[in-house]
Amino acid sequence: MPAAASRPLYRRADLLRLLEPRSIAIIGASARPASFGERTQRNLAGFGGRVHLVNARYDRLGDQPCHPNVAALPEVPDLAVVAAPMEAVEGIVTECAVSGVGAVMLYAAGFAETGKPERIALQARIAEIARAGRVRLVGPNCLGMLDYASGATISFAAVPRPAAPPTRPALGIVSQSGNLGFALAQGVERGVAIGRVLACGNSADLDVADCVAALAEDPGCSAIACVFEGMADPLRLVRAAELAWEADKPLVITKLAVGEGGAAAALSHTGSLAGSEAAYRAAFERAGVVLVDKFEALLETAAFLGKAPPPKAPGVALVSTSGGAAIMSADKAEIHGVPMPQPGPAAQAVLDARIPEYGSARNPVDITAQVLSDPDSLRACAEAICADPAYGAVVLPNGYAYDFATPRFALLGELAAQHGKAAAVVWLTEWLEGPGAREAEANPNLGLFRSMDRCFAALAAWQARAAALLDGAGSTTLTEREAKAVLAAYGVPVVGERLVRDAEAAVAAAEALGLPVVLKVESPDIPHKTEAGVIRLNLGDAAAVREGFAAVMANAAHAVPEARINGVLVQPMVPQGLEIVVGARRDPLFGPMVVVGLGGILVELLRDSATSLAPVGTAEAHAMLDRLRGAKLLDGFRGLPPVDRDALAAVIRRVSELAADQADRIEEIDVNPLICAGPRITAVDALIVRR
Amino acid sequence: MPAAASRPLYRRADLLRLLEPRSIAIIGASARPASFGERTQRNLAGFGGRVHLVNARYDRLGDQPCHPNVAALPEVPDLAVVAAPMEAVEGIVTECAVSGVGAVMLYAAGFAETGKPERIALQARIAEIARAGRVRLVGPNCLGMLDYASGATISFAAVPRPAAPPTRPALGIVSQSGNLGFALAQGVERGVAIGRVLACGNSADLDVADCVAALAEDPGCSAIACVFEGMADPLRLVRAAELAWEADKPLVITKLAVGEGGAAAALSHTGSLAGSEAAYRAAFERAGVVLVDKFEALLETAAFLGKAPPPKAPGVALVSTSGGAAIMSADKAEIHGVPMPQPGPAAQAVLDARIPEYGSARNPVDITAQVLSDPDSLRACAEAICADPAYGAVVLPNGYAYDFATPRFALLGELAAQHGKAAAVVWLTEWLEGPGAREAEANPNLGLFRSMDRCFAALAAWQARAAALLDGAGSTTLTEREAKAVLAAYGVPVVGERLVRDAEAAVAAAEALGLPVVLKVESPDIPHKTEAGVIRLNLGDAAAVREGFAAVMANAAHAVPEARINGVLVQPMVPQGLEIVVGARRDPLFGPMVVVGLGGILVELLRDSATSLAPVGTAEAHAMLDRLRGAKLLDGFRGLPPVDRDALAAVIRRVSELAADQADRIEEIDVNPLICAGPRITAVDALIVRR
Repeated sequence: MPAAASRPLYRRADLLRLLEPRSIAIIGASARPASFGERTQRNLAGFGGRVHLVNARYDRLGDQPCHPNVAALPEVPDLAVVAAPMEAVEGIVTECAVSGVGAVMLYAAGFAETGKPERIALQARIAEIARAGRVRLVGPNCLGMLDYASGATISFAAVPRPAAPPTRPALGIVSQSGNLGFALAQGVERGVAIGRVLACGNSADLDVADCVAALAEDPGCSAIACVFEGMADPLRLVRAAELAWEADKPLVITKLAVGEGGAAAALSHTGSLAGSEAAYRAAFERAGVVLVDKFEALLETAAFLGKAPPPKAPGVALVSTSGGAAIMSADKAEIHGVPMPQPGPAAQAVLDARIPEYGSARNPVDITAQVLSDPDSLRACAEAICADPAYGAVVLPNGYAYDFATPRFALLGELAAQHGKAAAVVWLTEWLEGPGAREAEANPNLGLFRSMDRCFAALAAWQARAAALLDGAGSTTLTEREAKAVLAAYGVPVVGERLVRDAEAAVAAAEALGLPVVLKVESPDIPHKTEAGVIRLNLGDAAAVREGFAAVMANAAHAVPEARINGVLVQPMVPQGLEIVVGARRDPLFGPMVVVGLGGILVELLRDSATSLAPVGTAEAHAMLDRLRGAKLLDGFRGLPPVDRDALAAVIRRVSELAADQADRIEEIDVNPLICAGPRITAVDALIVRR
Repeated sequence: MPAAASRPLYRRADLLRLLEPRSIAIIGASARPASFGERTQRNLAGFGGRVHLVNARYDRLGDQPCHPNVAALPEVPDLAVVAAPMEAVEGIVTECAVSGVGAVMLYAAGFAETGKPERIALQARIAEIARAGRVRLVGPNCLGMLDYASGATISFAAVPRPAAPPTRPALGIVSQSGNLGFALAQGVERGVAIGRVLACGNSADLDVADCVAALAEDPGCSAIACVFEGMADPLRLVRAAELAWEADKPLVITKLAVGEGGAAAALSHTGSLAGSEAAYRAAFERAGVVLVDKFEALLETAAFLGKAPPPKAPGVALVSTSGGAAIMSADKAEIHGVPMPQPGPAAQAVLDARIPEYGSARNPVDITAQVLSDPDSLRACAEAICADPAYGAVVLPNGYAYDFATPRFALLGELAAQHGKAAAVVWLTEWLEGPGAREAEANPNLGLFRSMDRCFAALAAWQARAAALLDGAGSTTLTEREAKAVLAAYGVPVVGERLVRDAEAAVAAAEALGLPVVLKVESPDIPHKTEAGVIRLNLGDAAAVREGFAAVMANAAHAVPEARINGVLVQPMVPQGLEIVVGARRDPLFGPMVVVGLGGILVELLRDSATSLAPVGTAEAHAMLDRLRGAKLLDGFRGLPPVDRDALAAVIRRVSELAADQADRIEEIDVNPLICAGPRITAVDALIVRR
């Protein structure tokens, strides 16, 4: 299991000796070809700092001295890379801790990922030794990490090598799976600017969230691409995402282990809990993460977002020499909800003048194969489009990898930079790395996609991210209590409650409200209470209330040490009922929308919801209920009395009115759950996010 | 508009002078560099047959004689490539027709795709001249066609050139968009075996359907990849797909212009009607077509299907050296419904012996980075998996493009061939064409995918195709009349009708059944009656019935000239009602399923249906109705009386019983529409496909 569930994130400052080592010791150095030690030493040939070798069996290795142990080294290394087998690791980490080494990286496998209790315990012991000694620990079961800027390319595997020295800022890659991280790193071979690759293996100490946080603060990092399996405390990754957001660094994540089979495989791979995909999706999206569901979309999307300036306009134009590619773009724009408006009069005049009658002088623009006889027509049309204020981004599909493609890409990059527009090349040729590809990839003003679909998905994410950046400025989350107060003001029935600050007050409140009760920590800094363990249900007597109070306060301190705690809410336990979710959100195009769906475990089972423009009247609220695939459950579910549809429709109407009235102040409302049984409908928890 | 809506398909024999020309004339040959004529001549440098030049302005071009016109050539060419402008085309085609040229290809644009009436008329005139003269016509607005076997690489654009001579059989590519077809052809640069590329431009004569049919009969073609925009008579493409099916050639299609924007762009590109995506999907799937919705999936999928042997077992195994890739495969297998069973005892024993405790000796198999120190473990495990009868296919993900990948691919190909299994490499590295890629692509026993998702999608299609090939042997479609007779026997209320063979009998039947009536041609060879124009609705008097009879018979002869016509069905016109569809199909895993959904225009609007295992009782049939998102419409839609739910549930129950009782004889039932108003429920049309 990953350690230290709720340790605060390491920040870049906490990891400097790991990330910017001046000296690296290879423990288990070896002359045996293809041994982990020998490979590591070879991979570090270009490192600008000092490399020390440790192995008691040698005095020298090649032309370098070899030392019997860490204490014998001429200096205390910033980082020790341990190329020794599992059995030796505990002793080595102890030695490093005693010597004051800054960080250790453990290649060896055979720890928690085996599932064996004694190995899980061994891993925990090693992590504790490192923690107590203030040694940062990477691994075990770790493939390495690469820093192309310093040459600290640390791995026992083959290391991808860029054809040209890396430019900065460049992409940062974080991967729980080292193999997949290094697979992405091979992008350097075809010109992708990658600065750093961090792999975490079993994450006994340093994990994906720490790595994302460190890259968020790395001035050399333009955007972060992350391969994520799962972790015990996913809120840590959400917090890291928030740091990336604050630093305005796009964070693109692909989540593995989304299904049951994958989750089982992940448990045996790095011992990670995969978690519910829907919950991750919701939490990540709230934190501004761009989620991609296919591995092959990850690097392209991150590279584009790292290069693209903020959108000047929502429109996207396509300038093509292929009618087929133009059609494809229109299809994909529609699928991904990317607007492709028509050009303004100035651009239209240029298009009309330069495009033959058998082409298309409308957006998507098709200059046709005429470009072969009139190459300047492409420049004229692209320039007119880039200058058109309707467009924030321009896409050039390319079906031929030949030398003539290269100047076209350069032209597009130049025009885009000049007009402050985003630009992307869609590489539709099957000659995947043919002439022009490397130039497009290396161009600081161009994204390069090998799929029209992925290009438009990325454009949609780019626009959504920008909209969220604008909207999210100063957005704040109301506490549960504040949110329910607002809802009550709009006539939504909410559970009765008292806010208390000590255990005895909690007991008194519980007795006044009627036992059994629920306790919940009230804090603006802990919006996800279940995950943080700050809720206790069904406390039936004074002793249970006292004990529960202590437990939730302790968990709160553990989960978010810096959290502001307003107190603890005491609520009567609401009897069983059908759980319904009513919410509202603001659509960037349509404004406030109201949503109703089945809640509780049914949410994920049915993924069943109905959405309308807010506000809705009673009839439309009824119609929304009818639209639910699970509408039948309202008529009585597992022995519950039928839900009073009129009462439920009234709640939908009121939430929609709140969303509409306060559209300029409210980003999101989430009444979850609303417990319904017969005529009794009670909002038990609620969240309101202010704009 | 495309011409000759319902001309029968050209077969390979009809196109031999086009597809296997012994002599090619370039009309509009030129010495001017980069002119279409000069480029064409250069592209034909490797052609094994004779090339003749035609241009009245030259006596010689370089070291070749140039002739003033076609009549002056030393022989009648099989194929004339017309590199002349639009204005000259009509005269040239006339001359070719007079001279007995076998086929002409027209590069020039500016015809029907401009949307101008006079250009549409010009194109139609040229097509008619060609047709009358028995000259096959390719284009206008055509980029060319490539035959790598003969060197007949005909185009004014740059022609992709294979690094090594093409092997046979090889992929055939058909594209309405020449540019996208040539983009796919660039696959030859990275080792994909491509035999022929056919582009159709405006399809004034030869169209995508003819090209698919010709490739279906081409012994050098292993599988067909097709980029399709739309056509006036899509049933022609369905018929071509059936020919490919009969020839056991996988046909993979990507459909462009699936949205409104794309459809508009297609109309201006090649003047094609895009048609409803859902209708295409249904028709194509019935014909055994593998549809892919992303261009980048096309070549990979076709190449894999062209290489893979029939599945020996439904299971797929993954043998990985990366835990991350293993997780990813489990995710994608779940998404695409591909079973990944566990190994049998013999294979399990090998895996247990060879895989370290921190790997995974279960499927998906993770040998881990241990392969670096024990390379033979990969061979042992892959061999055990290939020999395991649970598996029909083996997948090897590859995260590193380095030299060591190449022998691994060779090993997998060899083992797969030895055991008669399908095999695929999933190329997860971002070094897209790094070491090993070309070897994997060229290996006749390996598919190569650059996406785990696309690999499992293709595996699912491969399994489904094989299942359909087995099941579909001798499958036949019952006529509407036969189908309704079977349904009536199961108590489904069907519309009254009489089969007649002449107009007067139709009038008599109409008067007996009650006017107004519907006429429908009854033929086992015309299952899609609406598309073929063989239905006339709402005929109110004897004169209308006579006229309608003549019209449907004429359309039937035009649509499917060879069709067997049983007669014409006369049915009373059923008054307006809510249109419901009830159907059944056989799921390969679950057996017979019954489906109910909203019909008519609502089908595509709502995509709303409910499915259950057949048979269902009355309560479950009611529950299926409740599950429809549009269930509310049953309570009264646009002034109609509420549908009698009991009566409708009874129909669902009866159809489900028919499907269950006859599960070994019925593949599919489609009662569409069932017109429902109040207590009146009538099956107006129906289709039954026998196994």
